[in-house]
Amino acid sequence: MYYIGIDLGGTNIAVGLVDENGKILHSDSVPTLKERHWSEIVKDMADLSLKVLAESGHTLDEIKAVGIGCPGSIDKKNGVVVYSNNIVMDHVPMAEEIRKYIDLPVFLENDANAAALGEYAIYGEGVESYVFMTLGTGVGGGIILNGKVWSGFNGAGAEIGHQSLVFGGKPCTCGRRGCLEAYASVTALIAQTTEAIEQNPDSLMAQYAKEKGKVNGRTSFECAKMGDPVAIAVRDRYIEYVAEGICSIVNVLQPEILAIGGGISREGDTLLNPIKEYFATNDYNKHMKKTDIRIARLFGDAGIVGAAKAAEAGLEG
Amino acid sequence: MYYIGIDLGGTNIAVGLVDENGKILHSDSVPTLKERHWSEIVKDMADLSLKVLAESGHTLDEIKAVGIGCPGSIDKKNGVVVYSNNIVMDHVPMAEEIRKYIDLPVFLENDANAAALGEYAIYGEGVESYVFMTLGTGVGGGIILNGKVWSGFNGAGAEIGHQSLVFGGKPCTCGRRGCLEAYASVTALIAQTTEAIEQNPDSLMAQYAKEKGKVNGRTSFECAKMGDPVAIAVRDRYIEYVAEGICSIVNVLQPEILAIGGGISREGDTLLNPIKEYFATNDYNKHMKKTDIRIARLFGDAGIVGAAKAAEAGLEG
Repeated sequence: MYYIGIDLGGTNIAVGLVDENGKILHSDSVPTLKERHWSEIVKDMADLSLKVLAESGHTLDEIKAVGIGCPGSIDKKNGVVVYSNNIVMDHVPMAEEIRKYIDLPVFLENDANAAALGEYAIYGEGVESYVFMTLGTGVGGGIILNGKVWSGFNGAGAEIGHQSLVFGGKPCTCGRRGCLEAYASVTALIAQTTEAIEQNPDSLMAQYAKEKGKVNGRTSFECAKMGDPVAIAVRDRYIEYVAEGICSIVNVLQPEILAIGGGISREGDTLLNPIKEYFATNDYNKHMKKTDIRIARLFGDAGIVGAAKAAEAGLEG
Repeated sequence: MYYIGIDLGGTNIAVGLVDENGKILHSDSVPTLKERHWSEIVKDMADLSLKVLAESGHTLDEIKAVGIGCPGSIDKKNGVVVYSNNIVMDHVPMAEEIRKYIDLPVFLENDANAAALGEYAIYGEGVESYVFMTLGTGVGGGIILNGKVWSGFNGAGAEIGHQSLVFGGKPCTCGRRGCLEAYASVTALIAQTTEAIEQNPDSLMAQYAKEKGKVNGRTSFECAKMGDPVAIAVRDRYIEYVAEGICSIVNVLQPEILAIGGGISREGDTLLNPIKEYFATNDYNKHMKKTDIRIARLFGDAGIVGAAKAAEAGLEG
């Protein structure tokens, strides 16, 4: 038996046919065109699901359930998107709507939680506690406790990017100041890189950015590898922000594994090793076994696999 | 049937006979004299337990189990205090040691987690998720998820005082800089008050402290009530630190209830109302039901009741 996993993003709708081991057998995507009315988006989600299924050579009676990873605040029990501001949705009965096209059980999960569930299912080694932290446009995450997603009594938790890092610091997208996200997201790293370039117009990094015609999340990492002290300072300070955030999360939750995902995680050991070093000294826990901090491995597939795993978890209740 | 609850503190050993509803029937305490060898302390814990039992008119065969709330890192499974620096203990087999005197099941829990369990058992209204935050010498806490203590895979979690608040800020007792504890503990409040007095020697608060001959955690709250602007500034800034910490915890965990305990919680609504106001604006969650933030109510009894509840939880496995 199989699951259909739908990853609803601001840019693309991605759908995959996923087996019980979390392996994607076939997948496809279409643009979300998020300015449309949600009912059109949901129709495309259903259409693409049926297309992926047909192309895979399988049939609906082989599918146990449909899972959807979706941005925003989710009422999992009723399959309703209570609120999302990325793709504008306000009390959208998404599960019910999908079932108009596909007569199967449908389960919703917040997209970050779903990605955590996907990564955990494939690479979590069956541990009881697991935190997935994504460094992307924002800093998001998912928390797995006792093998299940923990997102609070109201489903709004696991917002690990919205812990304080700098009291009264930079404005955050959430309206507060000084959140981890305002310092450790790729958006923040780009701002930090741009600022360093402006302040050091003669640096190698300034020259590099000029040649490339843009600054992105990799700029400081690449120029640091070339030995530019300005880039090294930006990169190292950014990594320290991330490491501080990890210490805060671990001091509260002490998960057995904490996996770092998102675009910047492709930097691998350049990112991971200094974080581990920082953590070894700064973690509150000095006497018990320590959290295993690592780089996540599913990358772009985490959303589809996680949506399928959310469907599986939904059936299990 | 009853439980014996032992609250092992740096100053006193407190023991109570606790019924199945968490009511303390009889209790007593002796000084810990923490400089002694741990075996002498443990003997006093056992002796006091038997004394409390005898004085209560009950007998050992009416006792289901003994629970101990103990500072430090606890190996609950084996009943071992792995490490404590308050009362110096290093791999102390406390449960086994107590059983030399009292032939009953013995269960250990970290003292902050035990206090959380006690407060939750009596005033938690049976919610599934509950956070107890104590503002005292340090900032401690306990996390209850799905009705059970969550302290990480290693028992070292729930250190909610050791989240970042001010990146690179004041040194914390844990060795890191800028932890919530370094700003929101009563120790920190006393330092903030003392600093304000030094900077404003002509203030009402400076005069008040001089008359009293000392500064404590209540000084700024009391002088603020008298209208002193210097005291008001200290108090309000302190409350903002606490409120920021609460936002960070709630954004990650979204517990149904968060209760504030510790000495400063006796300030009641003066502390609670501005926190609630701050939280209403700054909580990430704007669309789902919100965490109920309140003042804890067990005060000094939370340790004994919680130790008894830890014994109950231990028997349930």
